[in-house]
Amino acid sequence: MNTNLSDLDSIVNAAQAAFLLGRGADLRTRSAWLEAVAAALEADAGVLVPLAARETHLGLTRLQGELKRTIFQLRLFASEIRSGEHLDATIDHADPQWGMGPRPDLRRMNVPLGVVGVFGASNFPFAFSVMGGDTASALAAGCSVVYKAHEGHPELSVRTAETVQRGLLEGGAPQALFTLVTGRAAAEALVDHPLVKAIGFTGSTAGGRALAQRASSRAEPIPFYGELGGINAVFVTAKAWSARRDTILTGYAGSLSLGMGQFCTKPGLLFVPAGATAEASGVLNRALADFEPAPLLTERLHEGYTNAVEHLSDQPGVQRIVEGNFEPAPLPTVLHAASSAVFDQPELLRQEMFGPASLIIEYATESELTALAGLLEGQLTTTIQAEEDDDVNDLAARLTDISGRVLWNGWPTGVTVSYAQHHGGPYPATTTTTTSVGTAAVRRFLRPVAFQDFPHARLPEALQDPNPWSVPQRIDGVWTRPQPVTAVR
Amino acid sequence: MNTNLSDLDSIVNAAQAAFLLGRGADLRTRSAWLEAVAAALEADAGVLVPLAARETHLGLTRLQGELKRTIFQLRLFASEIRSGEHLDATIDHADPQWGMGPRPDLRRMNVPLGVVGVFGASNFPFAFSVMGGDTASALAAGCSVVYKAHEGHPELSVRTAETVQRGLLEGGAPQALFTLVTGRAAAEALVDHPLVKAIGFTGSTAGGRALAQRASSRAEPIPFYGELGGINAVFVTAKAWSARRDTILTGYAGSLSLGMGQFCTKPGLLFVPAGATAEASGVLNRALADFEPAPLLTERLHEGYTNAVEHLSDQPGVQRIVEGNFEPAPLPTVLHAASSAVFDQPELLRQEMFGPASLIIEYATESELTALAGLLEGQLTTTIQAEEDDDVNDLAARLTDISGRVLWNGWPTGVTVSYAQHHGGPYPATTTTTTSVGTAAVRRFLRPVAFQDFPHARLPEALQDPNPWSVPQRIDGVWTRPQPVTAVR
Repeated sequence: MNTNLSDLDSIVNAAQAAFLLGRGADLRTRSAWLEAVAAALEADAGVLVPLAARETHLGLTRLQGELKRTIFQLRLFASEIRSGEHLDATIDHADPQWGMGPRPDLRRMNVPLGVVGVFGASNFPFAFSVMGGDTASALAAGCSVVYKAHEGHPELSVRTAETVQRGLLEGGAPQALFTLVTGRAAAEALVDHPLVKAIGFTGSTAGGRALAQRASSRAEPIPFYGELGGINAVFVTAKAWSARRDTILTGYAGSLSLGMGQFCTKPGLLFVPAGATAEASGVLNRALADFEPAPLLTERLHEGYTNAVEHLSDQPGVQRIVEGNFEPAPLPTVLHAASSAVFDQPELLRQEMFGPASLIIEYATESELTALAGLLEGQLTTTIQAEEDDDVNDLAARLTDISGRVLWNGWPTGVTVSYAQHHGGPYPATTTTTTSVGTAAVRRFLRPVAFQDFPHARLPEALQDPNPWSVPQRIDGVWTRPQPVTAVR
Repeated sequence: MNTNLSDLDSIVNAAQAAFLLGRGADLRTRSAWLEAVAAALEADAGVLVPLAARETHLGLTRLQGELKRTIFQLRLFASEIRSGEHLDATIDHADPQWGMGPRPDLRRMNVPLGVVGVFGASNFPFAFSVMGGDTASALAAGCSVVYKAHEGHPELSVRTAETVQRGLLEGGAPQALFTLVTGRAAAEALVDHPLVKAIGFTGSTAGGRALAQRASSRAEPIPFYGELGGINAVFVTAKAWSARRDTILTGYAGSLSLGMGQFCTKPGLLFVPAGATAEASGVLNRALADFEPAPLLTERLHEGYTNAVEHLSDQPGVQRIVEGNFEPAPLPTVLHAASSAVFDQPELLRQEMFGPASLIIEYATESELTALAGLLEGQLTTTIQAEEDDDVNDLAARLTDISGRVLWNGWPTGVTVSYAQHHGGPYPATTTTTTSVGTAAVRRFLRPVAFQDFPHARLPEALQDPNPWSVPQRIDGVWTRPQPVTAVR
């Protein structure tokens, strides 16, 4: 049964109360809350993973790995906030000689936004769902979360939420720091609620854009951190193609069909030199010959996938070189077109096919590559497959312009959670310049506040001169870090 | 003559070309460009300041100070980007033992967004205008700027733009890194232009909100960094009032009338204990007795000011305790109401009066203060006037929630440019969580990009292991700073 609007209002109010109660916690305490949630998830793996498998058709091994990632993420964030790195504590002492005129004592740090609404995705039932990156980073920031369950795995969502709440309880945190709600009406009311101060969203471009518009049309507009997916173009140089064509095609086949192609980082485009279609088709068909398909995540997603692939197949100049199907558990499809067709119809490059399908474009000469890249919209990732002495500087510059992450001789599926990760990219990859994966994701749910000439005892601990919390402080322009951040394993 | 749409398009294209040309510059080179602009402004002070005085009615001393601030800001930003602090260079080496599974080599840094459109304000003809904080931070980030001139000081804008372009030329920078345009049609086309990647705006809530909506409705939405002003409430405790009532009132009178009250940080509300209206009126009238009024910045602003003050004066329960006027050079007006009137009509607290006017609210008991603060919208600043042993923790927490900067026993006018400054605040103070003043303002015009498994020689210098640019690098979670940032004087 879906959350009704009266309950939604009560839930958001309780989340606000929990936020106010919780934000007094010191860094070690908040960090321990995240650890407690991680431990609760770990303890419930035996229940959660089989439930996820039943609702999503994803394999047990994959789901175990995904849960491990989700737990690791919480622990990495716990370590990150324990260090105080995210506070960006900055202290300018009063300075009568300051170049533009006397400077008061001014100290700035980041504070949490408040209640955050999170919309999870269907394709990562752990890592981008109930206790996924958005929830984890919002809690790490010190916010409370009201989470809108994805209808793709309703039972798992409710069960995971119970685990999270038990973890918070066992860790001594206010339990209403996290609450799950269901249904479209509650979702819209969540975006509209005056106490909600930011939205984290992972999903489709259409859905994300509509909610982003809703968030920016409020009486008080709020940030909408939407990860809307992408195409993930891969560019192969002529030299790389000559040197390792079969390896590239085999890697491509594996990456595009991994998890039934239901990744926002699936390689949806492969640019290769002209003239080897028959051979490429042969290699791909052999690489995918033993592929064991599984049902897609939801029926709705299956329908969208089928429509997208059929639409693209029907365009002039597009052929199928791997003939898949649209069974409930579909076999992969690979399409093919010449660059001339793409220059005529650039929209060929902008059609996401969320499932095990991809489009190969044959370019006439390598000099076309930068122009082809110029036809792409914003991407979560782009990839260059090249040899050491290839001249791809122009291409790399263009890809940097349109991408959140640029890979060299790799495949975009697989997004590690780390300090340097950036899972973002220009619109329509995301709606902002931020990342939804990695420690930097925590920053989305913070905002800076400056304190001017405050009595020392009234300053937040992180901004006091004796630095009682031992956080990194930038003092009069110079960073001091009392102790190195401990890397997490 | 206003910029026509065809010229606007050419200008944005030239700005994009200059951006592409300029972004290859190393940190020292870009830093030198900012220094060259600073030197050019300094050299032209003798022309610019009198021109500004003629067009804005602001005094020469004030304008000299403002130009000094503007020049200082460029030099501070030059120093900041020379250090590489803004790049946030983060390196995760490949790690087969990483807790969630093997980690590739992943390196992230900030890159400039591209062409930025800047809309300056009328009230700071140097510091928030042509070469103000938005332009300076966008150039520091590595962006190019197309600047929409404010009609409040058209000649000064054109003349300053010439100085800036000469500075860029003398510094060896692409000249089209900065171009000035004029007129409303060009302004709207600037927000809509596909090559424009962000907007910096300082101005009214209504105008800012409309342009923000426009920016978010583009095919590719772009960030809109709007500083829309505010009310800047000041709260005086009973003890502070007893201890130093006259000092507080004198400080208030000075701050509200400074620069003819035409500051976005003017104290627009003063909350004081009940029962001393007659005395307060006396002190304020004496403090303002010798005030020498100047004309407001523009006729349109004068009209808006007059309407706002008259509208507020007409509300039930509102009296004038300093009877100003609405001459072309108006004398300050101070209004007065009891907190009971405000609890009945909270909108009394939300009426900006852009000019030398302010509203004093008498509260019945100090316990009302937090509730009164609860009626306020987002503020650029709020201030507490209190004694050392006052219990104002709840009030301070509420003010932190709604403010960009919280002051203790000071006045909000005067916004220093420094590392810790935050000139922002929740909507309607600004449209984002960012600052438009201080070194952190540079971050607005950058976005992160991650590079995965790139050959070392193909990585940007800031991400290479030998660290040829000597920038701060976070390596496997631990920050290293090859040399301390040199503080600027």
